Order: sequence, then structure tokens, then C-alpha cells
Amino acid sequence: MTAIPVTAGLLIIGNEILSGRTQDKNGAYLGAQLNEIGIKLSEIRVVRDDETAIVDAVRALSETYTYVFTSGGIGPTHDDITTACIAKAFGAEVERNAEAMRRLTAHYAGSGVEFNDARKKMAEIPVGAALIDNPVSAAPGFIIGNVHVLPGVPRILQGMFEGLRSGLSGGAKVDSRTVACTVGEGTVAGALGDVQALFPEVEIGSYPYFRAGAFGTSLVLRSADVPKLEAATEAVRDLVRSLGAEPIEALEEAVPSGAGTAA
Amino acid sequence: MTAIPVTAGLLIIGNEILSGRTQDKNGAYLGAQLNEIGIKLSEIRVVRDDETAIVDAVRALSETYTYVFTSGGIGPTHDDITTACIAKAFGAEVERNAEAMRRLTAHYAGSGVEFNDARKKMAEIPVGAALIDNPVSAAPGFIIGNVHVLPGVPRILQGMFEGLRSGLSGGAKVDSRTVACTVGEGTVAGALGDVQALFPEVEIGSYPYFRAGAFGTSLVLRSADVPKLEAATEAVRDLVRSLGAEPIEALEEAVPSGAGTAA
Repeated sequence: MTAIPVTAGLLIIGNEILSGRTQDKNGAYLGAQLNEIGIKLSEIRVVRDDETAIVDAVRALSETYTYVFTSGGIGPTHDDITTACIAKAFGAEVERNAEAMRRLTAHYAGSGVEFNDARKKMAEIPVGAALIDNPVSAAPGFIIGNVHVLPGVPRILQGMFEGLRSGLSGGAKVDSRTVACTVGEGTVAGALGDVQALFPEVEIGSYPYFRAGAFGTSLVLRSADVPKLEAATEAVRDLVRSLGAEPIEALEEAVPSGAGTAA
Repeated sequence: MTAIPVTAGLLIIGNEILSGRTQDKNGAYLGAQLNEIGIKLSEIRVVRDDETAIVDAVRALSETYTYVFTSGGIGPTHDDITTACIAKAFGAEVERNAEAMRRLTAHYAGSGVEFNDARKKMAEIPVGAALIDNPVSAAPGFIIGNVHVLPGVPRILQGMFEGLRSGLSGGAKVDSRTVACTVGEGTVAGALGDVQALFPEVEIGSYPYFRAGAFGTSLVLRSADVPKLEAATEAVRDLVRSLGAEPIEALEEAVPSGAGTAA
């Protein structure tokens, strides 16, 4: 069972990510969500609010991956240049989209907030693009070619992605298993390489951890082929036991900040 | 006073970042640290543990930016392929480095942990590269061309970067000021664009926030030209007052996860 790989690239746009002012959360969110529907996030690029950088990056990602997602730069201020740049990358004009105007007009009606020219900029959409619904703050994203343009604010991006999910065509879903052990990464490394060689259909990653005074290694196995995944996981458990340790069944979880290593 | 821009690119290597299993922290750390010494982090790329992807990305970044930093993939396991890929990008051979062997031998001596073949892999360094000291776990990084190769674990990367800092040549330090206000981004947008046009030497970013039930906008100004920065900041304060709001002097801080927007 070999799945045709369905891939994605993510372009994160914004000086605030590169200056360290804002910690990006959209990469990890989209990576996990796409994985669940069988789409492999293969590359993330973060660029500044700069036309050349955005145009070049979106073209490169669009040519390379099945799907492209962008986050950031579609708000009402002068530094929000994503829409114009994506249009330029596709040789499209930008127009004030009638349906986007309707949604934004309805959103601001009676809100006490003026629907002024700056906010009307959020209705400017490349000609020929399809709108992406925004259940949080009305201003739509859009799809042009294989590129899905989303905002930078995580809770709005997440709300919009939820609506997009069912329209995305994934490959075979990749399952994962995690086996942890209180053994250093350098101790498992040799035999782990042998297990990887035996199971080329399974991607095996090794991640050292250090927390609460204990160190160890999390071994993460991923594959679309569940029988091979189970067999490789059992081989990893045997490997851990052969080193005199107990395999710890761990739930898949985000590794906390400050996780350390003892190789 | 126009500074010659000193730029950097960051290459983050690791499937675990792209799958969403691990939240990257190195991008925000390095962005902030480099900014402090007058180096502008201009691009981040995150790629999988894949030779072609790593070689292509490191070449592209090395040709484009003054400095390149990489994080991840220099440990003892089969999925740690960064060193071989960086060497390939520079057409260099990899050798078992005598000084790295000395440091690792000393580190493991008497530790109860065997300095086995897998761990000796961490002493493999491209010929001609300079070592980067690792005050945490001994295994060195290295510098080849303009590329600085660091590990993925944040606390080790940070320890190693601290040692590198004084050897990096930055441009003029970029200062920043933040003015927040309880006004929607779309309300400040028009006049803010006018302030930006008046002060091309100052980069003005607009970041909506929503927390504790209140929404507003943080306006972040950055420049190496402090008098211009102060003048632009005062213009932004005047802008906020002209909208009937009070400018809130805010310390530069990372925006919390889940910050929302009300444009």
C-alpha cells in the first residue's frame, strides 16, 4: 500500500515573526491538521512584509507542492500587502469583490464601527479567486490556483481552516506511534538505524528529552501502512527492552518548550 | 544615518516541526537575539530531514544573506543528516574532527555513558569548518562559509549562540517603540499609512489584539535612526489622540498565543 504523496507548503508572512516579537503558532497547527487528513506539510517559509520576498516564495511553493497555505498580511493597514503580492504572483488583477463587500457590510452594520476605506481594503480579492469563509471576523480569505490565503491571527486562521478541511483531498492518512524510554539517544542510535533500514515504509524519528530531572528519548514512528507501523513499533519496543529498559507508551503530544537533551 | 543592512537566514531542519509535534522556539529566539546586535533575520525556512531539501535550502540562503544559521539534525541517530548535507552543499568532505573527539571523550569519561560509534558521529565535521563550543552537552556545532550549524534543542542552541554572539558583526542596532491603543486596526489604518509615508526610515507594523475582553491595536515602530524613530512615535501618539483614545506605552513583549483581532 503505497500512497501517492499529497504535500503542502506554508508561507508565513510578517516582520513580527522574524523579529521574534510574535511566536508563530500557525505552522504547528497546520502541520498537525494537514497530517490528520493525509497531507504532508513539507516546507514552511517565513518572509518579511516585502513584495519581492512574498512573490518569489509563493511562486516557488506553488510550483513544488500540491497545496500552499499562506498566513498573515490580509488586514486593513499599510503593512498588509499579501493580497496584492499573491495576485502579482499569478498575474491577476485585484478587484473589490462584491460578495466580500456584502459580508463585510453586514458584519459592520450596527456594530458602531465604521466600514471605512481601510476596512474596505479587506474586500479586495484577486479576480477569479474563490472566497474562504471567515466565521470569526467576516473578512474572507481566498483561493487562487493551489494557494489558500489565510490571516495571521491563530484563532481566525483556525476557524477558517475548519471550513476548508472537507474540501482538501488528502492521501492515505499517516498514523503515528510514540515509544519513549529512559535511555540516552546515543545508546539507542545504532540499533534504531537497523530498525529503520528494515522498515523503509516507516519514518522513525528520535527526539531526546529532559524534564523533571530525568532524561530519555522519544521514538516517533509514522507510516500510512498500519501493519508495517505496528511491526516497526514492536521492533522498537524490543530494542528498548534489549537495552535493559522498559518501553513507555506515550501519547503523541507537543514537546514542551525547554525540552533538553542528553545524547 | 543609513546602516548597511546585515541580514540572516535561518534553516530549521526536522520532520517533528512540520508534523506539528514540536513547536519551534528557535526562530523567535534567534530573531530577537540577532535584532539586538543589528542583524535582521530576513527569512526562515523549515524543511524535512531530506538531503535534497536541506542542500537546496542552505545553498539558497547562503547566497542571499550575510549569515545563515541552521538548527536541528546534528545528533547521533540515523535521522540526523544535517552535517552531511551542509558538507555536500559546500562540496566539502566530512571527517572525524580530532578536537571534537577530544571534547566528547572528556564529556563522556566517567559519566557511565558509553562513548559509542553513534555518539562518535557527533564528532564528524566538514573539513575546514570551525567548531562552535557547546557549553551544555559538549557536542560542537560548526561554521562553514557563512553557515552556522546549531542543534535543535532550544536550551543547547541558546547556550551555543551566547558564545557566538561576540563574533558576529551587526549593522546599526534597530530600536523599537510600541504604542498600543484601544482602537480597532481599521480605524487607525488610514492615518497610520500617512505616518508611514512621512517616515520611510521607520518600519511601522500594526498588530491587532484581543485579550481579557478588550480589543485594540499595537503599533510597533522600528528604526536604526533614533531621532526619526522618536518623531514617528510621537506622530503615532498624536494619531491615537486624534481618534479620541489614549496612547498606551507598551513594553516590547511576545504576543501571547490566541491573541485575536477586531479589525
